[in-house]
Amino acid sequence: MEYFKFRRKHLYCEDVKVKDLADKYGTPLYVYSYRNILGRFNQLKKEFSRIRALICYSAKANSNLSVLKALIKEGAGLDIVSGGELYRAKRCGCPAKKIVYASVGKIEEEIKEAVNSGILMFNVESVPELERINHLAQKLKRKARVAIRINPDISPGTHKYITTGKKETKFGVEIDTAKRIFLNRNKYKSIVFSGIHIHIGSQITELAPFVKAIKKVNRLIGQLKEDNVRLEYLNIGGGLGIDYGIRPAKTAKEFAGAVMPLLKGTGLKIILEPGRFITGNAGILVSKVIYLKENSAKKFVVVDAAMNDFIRPSLYGAAHRIIPVRLRAMSHDLKAKQADVVGPVCESGDFLGKNVKISVGQGDYLAVLDTGAYGYSMASNYNSRLKPAEVLVKNNKAYLVTERQSYQDLVRKEIII
Amino acid sequence: MEYFKFRRKHLYCEDVKVKDLADKYGTPLYVYSYRNILGRFNQLKKEFSRIRALICYSAKANSNLSVLKALIKEGAGLDIVSGGELYRAKRCGCPAKKIVYASVGKIEEEIKEAVNSGILMFNVESVPELERINHLAQKLKRKARVAIRINPDISPGTHKYITTGKKETKFGVEIDTAKRIFLNRNKYKSIVFSGIHIHIGSQITELAPFVKAIKKVNRLIGQLKEDNVRLEYLNIGGGLGIDYGIRPAKTAKEFAGAVMPLLKGTGLKIILEPGRFITGNAGILVSKVIYLKENSAKKFVVVDAAMNDFIRPSLYGAAHRIIPVRLRAMSHDLKAKQADVVGPVCESGDFLGKNVKISVGQGDYLAVLDTGAYGYSMASNYNSRLKPAEVLVKNNKAYLVTERQSYQDLVRKEIII
Repeated sequence: MEYFKFRRKHLYCEDVKVKDLADKYGTPLYVYSYRNILGRFNQLKKEFSRIRALICYSAKANSNLSVLKALIKEGAGLDIVSGGELYRAKRCGCPAKKIVYASVGKIEEEIKEAVNSGILMFNVESVPELERINHLAQKLKRKARVAIRINPDISPGTHKYITTGKKETKFGVEIDTAKRIFLNRNKYKSIVFSGIHIHIGSQITELAPFVKAIKKVNRLIGQLKEDNVRLEYLNIGGGLGIDYGIRPAKTAKEFAGAVMPLLKGTGLKIILEPGRFITGNAGILVSKVIYLKENSAKKFVVVDAAMNDFIRPSLYGAAHRIIPVRLRAMSHDLKAKQADVVGPVCESGDFLGKNVKISVGQGDYLAVLDTGAYGYSMASNYNSRLKPAEVLVKNNKAYLVTERQSYQDLVRKEIII
Repeated sequence: MEYFKFRRKHLYCEDVKVKDLADKYGTPLYVYSYRNILGRFNQLKKEFSRIRALICYSAKANSNLSVLKALIKEGAGLDIVSGGELYRAKRCGCPAKKIVYASVGKIEEEIKEAVNSGILMFNVESVPELERINHLAQKLKRKARVAIRINPDISPGTHKYITTGKKETKFGVEIDTAKRIFLNRNKYKSIVFSGIHIHIGSQITELAPFVKAIKKVNRLIGQLKEDNVRLEYLNIGGGLGIDYGIRPAKTAKEFAGAVMPLLKGTGLKIILEPGRFITGNAGILVSKVIYLKENSAKKFVVVDAAMNDFIRPSLYGAAHRIIPVRLRAMSHDLKAKQADVVGPVCESGDFLGKNVKISVGQGDYLAVLDTGAYGYSMASNYNSRLKPAEVLVKNNKAYLVTERQSYQDLVRKEIII
């Protein structure tokens, strides 16, 4: 949150007063700092510059076109997971040679589109997928580059929904299967076996799981070398956690310090896929207090953002700091007592924070911090609510990068019979 | 699921083969049966006909315009929870006098719009909200009818996220507060106090919580009568559960049998707000098997529907039956062993079913049952996936009632800077 600071009691994004943005663009509103996004990207870039790693930003974390474009201009590639993200990548001018494509469920149309686009590589998650890519590439008379995604069976110590490197999860193939694939590589005439991919989870705040996973694949790489399998890339995925104000996370420097020695020995080109690390701390969700409410059991701050705008608290039990956009004297309506910050959606699962210490009055704005990743990209129209707007602050100027939806947008695809 | 049946090994919706719909409209695809929807509505209507209850369908369960229109034509009103749902109600011709509006977070614009539309009543959830409605109605020179939503502090024995009648939840006001409001009713010059509203939760499969809650408000109604507070309506909300194939639910008849005796005594007009009860069993989500996958720990059926299309399994841990659209011999690729049915989204939280016994091959269609409520209405574009299409089968003919999104739709509101 380096670029979100209080000055004279007002929260600023870079040099722009957040209150002014909320007044102008309405709420709920996502606000991102361009400098913060690039700053995080460049931290990683610098630390991995000696081995000239390719950093493919994980688009699913925040797939706003202007955010993607900012990172691409700075030299990033993209880690995509669907045809929709491939479309986005093209729309904002990402060079195909910097696109890597992971997903356990790539469908035919998506594969064809990606092969035709000449992306850097597919991260392949199963033998049937490999067979299908081979088949489709052959039909298209092209070669498809792939990395085999290894499931290293390592626990990253994060939420079970974002643990992806345990063998009980649907991701990747086991090491033995990968070895078999590489040894039978001649079977796949239209495939170029470029490398190995791992991705063990998201919001990982320890270094040990990364080190363990890389050591595991390094052994595999060694064995494959003996078998004359030549690889070009090692993609170590993403998952680097951020500081949500509760538990410190590792810095780019610490991360690089732990993994670089292991990577250099491979002699392979390295790919990283950070998502949350780059955009997570670089955004806030601004919301307006509609009502203060209290009963004999609880206090509630009812705000105009809800689970449809930001589902992480409901879905993962994620705790985010929530602060007023303007600091006020404590004598106000609701003293800084613990309250649940809840939205208008008609279920109890609709909350932004539980037992939050916050001092706000009706009509005040508040900010849910660290919502630059897995915020807008997970938004829905539940309760027929409109998706919020997104603003990007760049060179201390605010740009509306996503308009708020209208009621007409809600029913755009519907046909009344 | 009365209108989803197998004939000669093929699943039909009414007289339409589901496979044909999937072939024609693609997958993932929501399919609803018109007859099933109306049938469920009419079960309730019939049971409550003696007291001529007004049935306001809870739009948030399935807010598709054609579904709403079908119910409105059959005599239903609507229970809405947002300006977006008010917009939908108008778009499909719902008489304003049959609209009730609940939500803990109604904003000014929404209140004004609803007052101007002349809706039947607001279900008011807090004193500050009541004050605001009074203030805005006064400014508009109109009277606003309201029911006070009581939080009866009763546990409905359902998932904590859809429990709404416990005092730790954000909904309604306590009985004492309600009494105070009614006794001070002259304070609110632009409000007509029409009644009392309760709604204790969703997917409730027992009758006791309903009976308990109604008894509680009946006591309040009695006390208010003594204090010369005349009411016109008692709105007992929704929440009636459905059979998901795991635990039987109560029928309309059983429900009416339990609550009608309590309602008649009040002498008030009765409103019901069923949502899931009407549309839940009347829809399926059809999806295609992309890959079969297995490792040393688990089998996976990877399909083209994901948590963005249907989030109930991830969000509530909801278990839905999943069946093939065409029954096949057991000798096929994947025998009927237990497998996780998972989607393409890149997190472990993306699953439609865990340890499902299912026999399907790659390319087969399967159906997630009982997804007519809280399915499409909660869909998102997570992972830049397109929202699915919706088909309504009416008089044995299929109508596309929501087109599948396109890639262009994904970025329609975005502005590249």
